[in-house]
Amino acid sequence: MAVQKPSIPKGTRDFSPEESAKRSYIFDTVKRQFQCFGYQPLETPAMENLSTLLGKYGDEGDKLLFKILNSGDYLSKIPQGDLTPESSSPLATRISEKGLRYDLTVPFARYVVMHQNEISFPFKRYQIQPVWRADRPQKGRYREFYQCDVDVIGSTSLLNEVELLQIIDTVFEKLKIKVVIKLNNRKILSGIAEYLNASERLTDITVAIDKIDKIGLNAVKDELIERGVSADSVGKLEPILLLEGKNQDKLNTLRKILASSETGIKGIEELETILAYAESLSLSTPIEIDLSLARGLNYYTGAIIEVKAKDVAIGSICGGGRYDDLTGIFGLNNMSGVGISFGADRIYDVMAQLDIFPAESAATSKVMFVNFGEKEAQTCLGLLALVRKAGIAAELYPDSAKMKKQLDYANRKGIPFVALIGENEIATSTMAVKSMASGEQHQVAFHQLNDFLTNQ
Amino acid sequence: MAVQKPSIPKGTRDFSPEESAKRSYIFDTVKRQFQCFGYQPLETPAMENLSTLLGKYGDEGDKLLFKILNSGDYLSKIPQGDLTPESSSPLATRISEKGLRYDLTVPFARYVVMHQNEISFPFKRYQIQPVWRADRPQKGRYREFYQCDVDVIGSTSLLNEVELLQIIDTVFEKLKIKVVIKLNNRKILSGIAEYLNASERLTDITVAIDKIDKIGLNAVKDELIERGVSADSVGKLEPILLLEGKNQDKLNTLRKILASSETGIKGIEELETILAYAESLSLSTPIEIDLSLARGLNYYTGAIIEVKAKDVAIGSICGGGRYDDLTGIFGLNNMSGVGISFGADRIYDVMAQLDIFPAESAATSKVMFVNFGEKEAQTCLGLLALVRKAGIAAELYPDSAKMKKQLDYANRKGIPFVALIGENEIATSTMAVKSMASGEQHQVAFHQLNDFLTNQ
Repeated sequence: MAVQKPSIPKGTRDFSPEESAKRSYIFDTVKRQFQCFGYQPLETPAMENLSTLLGKYGDEGDKLLFKILNSGDYLSKIPQGDLTPESSSPLATRISEKGLRYDLTVPFARYVVMHQNEISFPFKRYQIQPVWRADRPQKGRYREFYQCDVDVIGSTSLLNEVELLQIIDTVFEKLKIKVVIKLNNRKILSGIAEYLNASERLTDITVAIDKIDKIGLNAVKDELIERGVSADSVGKLEPILLLEGKNQDKLNTLRKILASSETGIKGIEELETILAYAESLSLSTPIEIDLSLARGLNYYTGAIIEVKAKDVAIGSICGGGRYDDLTGIFGLNNMSGVGISFGADRIYDVMAQLDIFPAESAATSKVMFVNFGEKEAQTCLGLLALVRKAGIAAELYPDSAKMKKQLDYANRKGIPFVALIGENEIATSTMAVKSMASGEQHQVAFHQLNDFLTNQ
Repeated sequence: MAVQKPSIPKGTRDFSPEESAKRSYIFDTVKRQFQCFGYQPLETPAMENLSTLLGKYGDEGDKLLFKILNSGDYLSKIPQGDLTPESSSPLATRISEKGLRYDLTVPFARYVVMHQNEISFPFKRYQIQPVWRADRPQKGRYREFYQCDVDVIGSTSLLNEVELLQIIDTVFEKLKIKVVIKLNNRKILSGIAEYLNASERLTDITVAIDKIDKIGLNAVKDELIERGVSADSVGKLEPILLLEGKNQDKLNTLRKILASSETGIKGIEELETILAYAESLSLSTPIEIDLSLARGLNYYTGAIIEVKAKDVAIGSICGGGRYDDLTGIFGLNNMSGVGISFGADRIYDVMAQLDIFPAESAATSKVMFVNFGEKEAQTCLGLLALVRKAGIAAELYPDSAKMKKQLDYANRKGIPFVALIGENEIATSTMAVKSMASGEQHQVAFHQLNDFLTNQ
């Protein structure tokens, strides 16, 4: 067989031990908080039936689904007449029944509908799994990436929104990332559309507003006009988007503007309740009402949330909102829920840029025993068992290679201590333990090694 | 849009919160031991280039690869003449470039070759990720399942084999599964083939022997004859497969039988060294030399290992061995390694059958605060923050629903305690904490809740 130079598909990544360990640190931190707030894990398969996925993410999303070729004779039932070089699109769903999941929300909705009789509602679940999108790969955008979703479904209480804000607050505090939470409400956006006499344009308006951060106010205005919103309406919208001041000031002004919109007022009241709770909990993360926050996804119906890092210019690193009819597409109505998703890849980038991964996240051995030969190795094996029993990661270099090679290995792997046990050390039951960072050497009795390592 | 009844692809599974939590318990236990022995995590993408995967698992394996349909106009470059209902097989690799990984070994080999200049050898890595196979689904066999692999590559020392035996010993001790380790060596199998004058039949012999557990000795003999091994050779093989007694007795007898085979003797010596180390470490898991152990995979060249549960009739729950040329397929020679893979799904089945998942693996809240209304909820939120700060999972029922509904929820979710805080309790800063199991009720002062919960 000819030897091939290996590669991986574009848009995908290998994660080295160092990267994997750092990623685990993020996942573990997030997971611990999810659990602390009473959320339970859920896992769904990587492959879903295409019928579950298609039509849920818009035409653009359908195109970005990775489809899995049917096994076996996938063409045998396709008539010759249907097989032409132009038939890629119509044939796709006839030769592939399954696709890779595109997000964790649709599989979650599917799960809830399939298991509605076993689930104890409100159902608080978290899910940390990869998703796949056939997007054009570019810096910071991958074809395989992880989502960390946390949702509660089956409760309309605004305490759930408050709880998600608490989770955001705690997670980023633990990760030591300074963030600001942006908050808005779809009902307010509906109210604004009513006020503009453009209710039937709500989607156009939210889609356009959603881009304000990227393309700026003027471009958004142009786009609205292009989408058929009247110049008069666009003129009335501008001061709303430019509203400044404290949250309560914004809401007070808005309450006057939207006075005639029942929906709009409802949205304002919801935000006021949420903010009052948040205030009483003295969260350390600032929360800002941002009326230009729209979030593209159509299924949101209440509060919408986005989190931005303060010290790094990057898009939102967490976001979500309230939806009233996510499970309706699968036949289960009246299931209101609210959830957020942490963007692990962007959080990683932020932490890498700020260089704030803690040393413990390295996941390497605390000590390596140098291998001086068979007899010495035998002694090391016994000591290793004791060290590991105390939960301390440790290893013995497997070959009695040259000292330099062994120390190089420890160094490259970031192992902080090496233990040297030769004939003399065996005779005195004492070893030399060397700190790789300082070069300092300590004499440590065999039975005191655990204590020594624990205190370092 | 017509409402569809949702389902998932056959051979795949959703994991409920309870199942996910138990699975996590297994993964976390395994992972902790891997780390304790100095292994570091690695993650590779779910999708690999088909060129990486094809030809690595035999013809049968190639057929079981899930292939991913190319995005966009995947047919546009295929000439009309090549498009026929009979062309499923030749067309497959022209319309799909990527496939889902089939195991973790080939991606590991690929990674090592691609990153050989950055890796500090010996490279000790673990990898816990799902793999996909288009097998016919049946009881206990799934199309998506997890592998937990641990390998060290770049060292020929037998200490690595010993270390893997230690890991097996510790992992199953922690999981409280009684197991026995079966050990053999490919070099011994080669020696046996030499002794039978059937060296060129080594693969046939190992493939046939591999089935002895499933189909019995007689059927294996029939199969060997069918595969063209002489009746004489098969006659000479039988007593070897039936060898009984202690490990050392087996090896002593074998040493005589294989006296003229250098390879065979080498294999015997390797096993003796490994067993001597294992003995000195007083592992609690018994190790049995099993000369009928072959393991189907062709790439093994030294020790081969398999682990069986003692109290549950199920196939092997962990297995692996030494390979000398795994990376050769990708152009990197002389990279000996050894590794094992834990079968998480079977381990789960064993633990479920023996009912030995610890209560802590449930991953549910320790306490739920009953929701009596807005004012009371406000008080609960403050207390919740304190409880969670102590790392104790806790929640507030989000709606002030009927008491029965709230208690039902706590019950179904397996939450051991509920806290009741009404008007009186607020006035006295004392709450009633009820044990869901015993029904017993305790008066607990607000500031003593953490202590109370920690001591339960």
